[in-house]
Amino acid sequence: MKIGIIQQTCSGNIEDNKQKLASNIRTAAQKGAELVVLQELHNSLYFCQTENVDLCSLAEPIPGPSTEFYGSLAKELNVVIVTSLFERRAPGLYHNTAVVMERDGSIAGKYRKMHIPDDPAYYEKFYFTPGDLGFHPIDTSVGRLGVQVCWDQWYPEGARLMALQGAELLIYPTAIGYESSDTPEEQERQREAWTTVQRGHAVANGLPVIAVNRTGHEPDPSGQTNGIQFWGSSFVCGPQGEFLYRAPKNEEIVEIIDVDMKRSENVRRWWPFLRDRRIEEFSPLTRRFIDKEGIEAIDTIETIDAIDAIDTIEDIGGFIFARVWL
Amino acid sequence: MKIGIIQQTCSGNIEDNKQKLASNIRTAAQKGAELVVLQELHNSLYFCQTENVDLCSLAEPIPGPSTEFYGSLAKELNVVIVTSLFERRAPGLYHNTAVVMERDGSIAGKYRKMHIPDDPAYYEKFYFTPGDLGFHPIDTSVGRLGVQVCWDQWYPEGARLMALQGAELLIYPTAIGYESSDTPEEQERQREAWTTVQRGHAVANGLPVIAVNRTGHEPDPSGQTNGIQFWGSSFVCGPQGEFLYRAPKNEEIVEIIDVDMKRSENVRRWWPFLRDRRIEEFSPLTRRFIDKEGIEAIDTIETIDAIDAIDTIEDIGGFIFARVWL
Repeated sequence: MKIGIIQQTCSGNIEDNKQKLASNIRTAAQKGAELVVLQELHNSLYFCQTENVDLCSLAEPIPGPSTEFYGSLAKELNVVIVTSLFERRAPGLYHNTAVVMERDGSIAGKYRKMHIPDDPAYYEKFYFTPGDLGFHPIDTSVGRLGVQVCWDQWYPEGARLMALQGAELLIYPTAIGYESSDTPEEQERQREAWTTVQRGHAVANGLPVIAVNRTGHEPDPSGQTNGIQFWGSSFVCGPQGEFLYRAPKNEEIVEIIDVDMKRSENVRRWWPFLRDRRIEEFSPLTRRFIDKEGIEAIDTIETIDAIDAIDTIEDIGGFIFARVWL
Repeated sequence: MKIGIIQQTCSGNIEDNKQKLASNIRTAAQKGAELVVLQELHNSLYFCQTENVDLCSLAEPIPGPSTEFYGSLAKELNVVIVTSLFERRAPGLYHNTAVVMERDGSIAGKYRKMHIPDDPAYYEKFYFTPGDLGFHPIDTSVGRLGVQVCWDQWYPEGARLMALQGAELLIYPTAIGYESSDTPEEQERQREAWTTVQRGHAVANGLPVIAVNRTGHEPDPSGQTNGIQFWGSSFVCGPQGEFLYRAPKNEEIVEIIDVDMKRSENVRRWWPFLRDRRIEEFSPLTRRFIDKEGIEAIDTIETIDAIDAIDTIEDIGGFIFARVWL
C-alpha cells in the first residue's frame, strides 16, 4: 500500500495552513498515495505552549468545518486521510482528536487522544480532556488503522490493544520538538528515544508504524521559553522496526512510502509473540503502581463472599465480564 | 554502578564452560564490577536445537551444584551474579531459570522464564514448563533487578510489570542467533529488531536495560539445519534507550559498563509516562485476542446479577480483588 506522509511547518494563519495541506495532499495523491497521514494539530500553530482560554476558539465540532474540508479532499482524490483536530465537544470540554476521512468523504472513525501530556511548553492537560473512546482501531477501505496521537506513542499498552483488535497499521500524528536549553547530545537522545520506542511497538506487535511529526520553529507567545524547535524526523518502519523511510529534521516533505502489507503475516509467523503471551499474569497492568498502597486501594475483600459464582468480569467495549481466580 | 557482562562461546564440555565463566567473572570483579550478568544457559551448549530426552540430564536442582559454584564465586569476589540455569524441579518438570546470587553466596531470588519459544532449532517448549513464579523483580544489595530471560525480551508487558514493582534495571540473559538460510539483510533486520524492542522497554519504562547474548556457532546435532550462529551484540542502554555499550557479533567479551543509576530519576521526571497511564482501559490486555470468540469465551453475563456490590476483582500476588464497572 502506498502511504503518503506530510511533514510541514505551520503558521498562525489557519487558512494558509489548510491550503498548504490541501496542496500537499493533492501531490501525495498524484504520486499514488492511497492513505495520507497528517501531523498532530496540523491546522494551526501548536497552541499548547501557553495556557490561554482564548485559544479554545480554535476548537471546532466533529463533524464540522475541518471534516468537511478534508472529507471533500478525500472524496475528490479518492484517498483515506488521517487528520488531527482540536475537537469542541461542549463549552469547556475539548479533545485532541484524530479523525479518519474515508474515500467517499465520510468520517470513517475518530480517536480521542487518551494520554495527555503536560510539560513546560506542552500544556495539554489545560486544553484536552483525556479521550473517553478507548483504544480501538478504525476500519477503512485501506485497512484497519490503529490511530493514536503523540504522547500515546510512548505507551506499549495502547499499541498492544490496537494489535489485539486486529489493527494492520499503527499510526501516530505527532508534534514534538526540542527544548532550546537542552544540549545537542540530550536533544539527540530524546529524538532517538522517540523513534526507538515506536519502532519497538512495531517489533512487539509485528506491525508497520507511521509517525508524522511537524517541523520548524514556533515561538512561545508568553516569551517564557525560546519556543519549540519541532524535530521533524517523521518515519515509516516495517513490522520488524526496520526503517522504510525517515524524514530530515528541518525540512518540509511530502513522501510516498510503499508498505508491503503482507509482510506482517510472515514476520508474525516467524516470531509468533501473540501465541505465547502470559495473559493470566497481566491483570496487574491495570494498576497505577504495584506497591502496598496500590494494593490496599483496590482491596475489597469484604465482597468476596458474594462472588463465588463469578468466573470473569471485565469491561470491554460495552460488555461487562468478571474473572475471579479462587 | 559498575556492571560486568560476559559474552562467550560455549563448548560441549560443561566443566570447561564453567571454568571459563569463573575466570571471566574474576576478571570482571577485578575491573570493579559490582553486578555480573551471564548469558542464557551458559553452562552448556544451547541444547534446544533438538528434542532429545537424554538432554534432560543436564538439568539440576536449585539450590544445587551451579548455585553452589556461582554462589562461592559471588562470595569470594563480593559481587552479585545473574546466572541462567536449566532447573530440574521434578522428574519430567523442568524450567529455564535465572538465579541471582548475592554477595554473601546466598540465592537472592530466582525467575522462571515465563514466555517459552518454540521455533525450528529452538525447541524450548519441549524442555521447559512456562514459569509459574510470575513477573517479579529480585531484591539484591545492588538494587532491585528486573530479571527475565530471552523470549521474554520481546514482550512489553513483562518489562512494564517489573517497572511497576520498582525494578531499577531490566536484565535479559539471552541465546539468540541467525538461521543460516536467511539472507544477510534479513539477519541484520532480526538482530536490529531484537535490539530495538529491548531499547524500547528502556524508553517506555525509564530504566536501563542489560542484554547478554552468547556468541559463536553451535552445530545442530540432528544435522537437519546448519546450526545456529549466535549473534552476540550484547548491550547495555540507559533509560532513554541510549547505547552505553554494544558488543561485537562474533567476539567473546568481558566488559564493564558504568551505569548512572540516578539518571532514571531525571528521565522519569522529564517524561513521566507512569503518571498518565490509562489503567482503566488496560484490562483487555489480559485477553488472548480481542475478537468475537475471545469475548464469548469469557462471557459470563448470567452472573452479573450477583455482583452489584463488587468494585474490583483481581488476582495479584495471592490476593483476590474484584473490579466491576457498572
